[in-house]
Amino acid sequence: MAEKYQQLLARLADVQNLNKTAAVLGWDQQTQMPPGSAEPRAHQLELLARLSHEMFVSEETARLLQDAAAEVAGAPYDSVEASMIRVVQQDYDDQVKLPTSLVSEIARVTTLAHEVWAKARANNDFLSFRDTLEKIFDLAQQAAQHLGYKEHPYDALINQFERGITTAQVKQIFDEHKPALVELVHAIGKHDSAVSDALLHQDFDVEQQRKFSVEVATAIGFDFQHGRLDTAVHPFCTNFGREDVRLTTRFDPKYIGSALFGTMHEAGHGMYEQGSGAELEYTPLSGGTSLAVHESQSRMWENMVGRSKGFWQWALPKAQQYFPQLARVDVDTFYKAINKVKRSFIRVEADEATYNLHIMLRFEIETGLLEGKIKVADLPEEWNARFESYLGVVPPNDTLGVLQDVHWSSGLIGYFATYALGNMLAAQYYNRALQAHPGIPDEIASGKFDTLLGWLRSNIHEHGRKYTSDELTRRITGESIQSRDYIQYLQTKYSALYGL
Amino acid sequence: MAEKYQQLLARLADVQNLNKTAAVLGWDQQTQMPPGSAEPRAHQLELLARLSHEMFVSEETARLLQDAAAEVAGAPYDSVEASMIRVVQQDYDDQVKLPTSLVSEIARVTTLAHEVWAKARANNDFLSFRDTLEKIFDLAQQAAQHLGYKEHPYDALINQFERGITTAQVKQIFDEHKPALVELVHAIGKHDSAVSDALLHQDFDVEQQRKFSVEVATAIGFDFQHGRLDTAVHPFCTNFGREDVRLTTRFDPKYIGSALFGTMHEAGHGMYEQGSGAELEYTPLSGGTSLAVHESQSRMWENMVGRSKGFWQWALPKAQQYFPQLARVDVDTFYKAINKVKRSFIRVEADEATYNLHIMLRFEIETGLLEGKIKVADLPEEWNARFESYLGVVPPNDTLGVLQDVHWSSGLIGYFATYALGNMLAAQYYNRALQAHPGIPDEIASGKFDTLLGWLRSNIHEHGRKYTSDELTRRITGESIQSRDYIQYLQTKYSALYGL
Repeated sequence: MAEKYQQLLARLADVQNLNKTAAVLGWDQQTQMPPGSAEPRAHQLELLARLSHEMFVSEETARLLQDAAAEVAGAPYDSVEASMIRVVQQDYDDQVKLPTSLVSEIARVTTLAHEVWAKARANNDFLSFRDTLEKIFDLAQQAAQHLGYKEHPYDALINQFERGITTAQVKQIFDEHKPALVELVHAIGKHDSAVSDALLHQDFDVEQQRKFSVEVATAIGFDFQHGRLDTAVHPFCTNFGREDVRLTTRFDPKYIGSALFGTMHEAGHGMYEQGSGAELEYTPLSGGTSLAVHESQSRMWENMVGRSKGFWQWALPKAQQYFPQLARVDVDTFYKAINKVKRSFIRVEADEATYNLHIMLRFEIETGLLEGKIKVADLPEEWNARFESYLGVVPPNDTLGVLQDVHWSSGLIGYFATYALGNMLAAQYYNRALQAHPGIPDEIASGKFDTLLGWLRSNIHEHGRKYTSDELTRRITGESIQSRDYIQYLQTKYSALYGL
Repeated sequence: MAEKYQQLLARLADVQNLNKTAAVLGWDQQTQMPPGSAEPRAHQLELLARLSHEMFVSEETARLLQDAAAEVAGAPYDSVEASMIRVVQQDYDDQVKLPTSLVSEIARVTTLAHEVWAKARANNDFLSFRDTLEKIFDLAQQAAQHLGYKEHPYDALINQFERGITTAQVKQIFDEHKPALVELVHAIGKHDSAVSDALLHQDFDVEQQRKFSVEVATAIGFDFQHGRLDTAVHPFCTNFGREDVRLTTRFDPKYIGSALFGTMHEAGHGMYEQGSGAELEYTPLSGGTSLAVHESQSRMWENMVGRSKGFWQWALPKAQQYFPQLARVDVDTFYKAINKVKRSFIRVEADEATYNLHIMLRFEIETGLLEGKIKVADLPEEWNARFESYLGVVPPNDTLGVLQDVHWSSGLIGYFATYALGNMLAAQYYNRALQAHPGIPDEIASGKFDTLLGWLRSNIHEHGRKYTSDELTRRITGESIQSRDYIQYLQTKYSALYGL
């Protein structure tokens, strides 16, 4: 019974295992690989990308997909079988448009690009990265042309990460809440002295930071029996299956926030992967459904939880055991410090009020590059000019500016917007979780996180990719993504913090 | 020109890259992977083994091999082209005998077995490993039957690691030098008090040990731009190409010898891989030609160099900077300590005099198991009885006995004998290097290692797999492997040390 469906699953499992294998090699490259080893790694990753793509877009897969669809016709929309056919057909329709040669070329170029970027970033030398970056944007442009789009090449690219969304929709939702953000940041700026974060900027032993980060990640629910935490130039989370999830962070010996909130953020991603339904494992339905939903998880744990006062009622005494220099700090002062709004340069360390502004400038640059209105060679100037207009300051160098993010070197173009969308989804989902379980904030204050995690598991995690981002959001909240909840959350939080 | 030959190379490069990818996953499993992640890893490694084997033994490869052979017919024996056809044809003839299902089953079972073994070893619990080990020996027996052999199933298995050798030859060479070894160990035993190694057994800070190990490995010529050193339950060296070579070791906070000599040993393997000819990269001719030759490199650096008095004239002052507790030790005392002969339990930490006895008992057990004369269930008793007869002592538990080595859990059966063969080749090659460059010992005493490394590079490393172990040994020494040089080396060294 359902013989073709089983054969389809076996084939998809091979594709999935090839992709997870590539993920191991990618993780190794960013956390372990010696500096001079990019060349063999590029050959390995090019091969894996080629084999996986060839296997997935083959006529054999198409035939199995067609036959399997006939076998499970009539299965309810929510069933694994119907979802499998629906999601895999869409994956297939997308992927079959890309020539295998382009897929493997992108894998090769971006693997080599990582070391070029990391070196350029370390040396504050954009020029040494420029040609590589031009090549990458050219390949992305080619991919967009193959994938096709109605209005904007960016549509094709963001759809790889956030199925169903358009550039116009992103622009609308950004335009819609930008004035409120700018106004909020402006208002806070007038009360800047109300909050100091000096206590976060002291000497913090790196090994103690690591231990504290692991304790916090464990407490909120990340499973280290099936995961680990490492150091990377740019923090990320990856997985090789729900039973092997890898977090990374980076440590600043002079600032406690970077590793701690970075770890909570990546643990949010990691718990989403660890919570993916067991029956979906080794299929394309496993794992997070979109990058915005993924980011809703990371941002919720980092911010709604990690930057709440209740959390620090539980966590501050723990922190004080690791860091005696915090012994005399009270919860109110600490809570204020970790929510200090700053016109700072690094996106991943930005406060919640300015964060989306960092994204908007990247969105403008990416769409401008794809439209041909911006040249890669001019990126440092384009970046700095926008940074000044959005945040009122100019990065002192490219390491703190256009070179800060790993994404472009990895070929991830059309990706940044999903971070801002994730912030909005985080607020929408968290409101729903609080409606369902009003005791969650009190629980957090006593170090109990499983009610929230359980709600996320059953409402989001375990569904894997069965529902699109929009389907999931409508199921949970009754409406699509909107910025209202996020803006309201920010206004309430910062009004109290800054006495606005 | 040579179009089919180029197509053959492209196909072989894919196979090679799949195998190197599997090596990355294997390294990760032994050095980084979380304890609960064996299941997804087994699926990944099973797939890679299956794809690689299918691709290599396909009719397409056979056809290309035939056509390419015709194209390059007449190329000299030493040429890359002739060697490629010769070696790949032999690889093909071997591999095509194995069903893909068996190859992927072995990959799956041994991946899962690693965690089972590591846990059994940690808990001194052979029983929890027994069923897995039975399964592995059964799979090895199946492989031997498929591969075929004239006299002994062990012939088929050792040929995977040491092409061209037979069980009878191994037995003869073992029988030939065993009496001399036993006599030497016996004679040393009578003068046991002449040498003390107490100074090696003190508290040695692990981080300092790591730094010193890295300094020594760097000095002898291991390239950390294209390699790294990590910690593993059982030390090993692997590579993902000549530009990405990974060493592992393990640290004993109470004994300096384990990490230090382990690192020199693995660096010997690593330098062999790093020295493989650039023109052979991404082909089946890259890397070490056999395990015995590989072991000749690791043992030469560990023992002929690392356990020589000259080496410590250079290295002891360095060691004293890392370990103040050695400040008052003189070179003679240190040299004696690191060459103390002991009836110890752990092979990888055994002295040179007893080392081959550790191998002989494993060889007996493996051949006995394959002949059906020994049962897996009886291994602890079989091990301990032989250990007593060879070394006069009984391991106090299975962790220090039958569970100590990683090999069987990895399916490496027929492998151990190559360690003893490597000791003999190390002595043969080192004698030749000294004949060519009599200044090498003096150079070593002043921290100069590049004459020796250069000789190894041009005589061994850069040829990759072009020559078999026996061809290479005859080219270098004018004769095949023999135990004479090794026994003479041991007798000379230990007579002086122990005043025999």
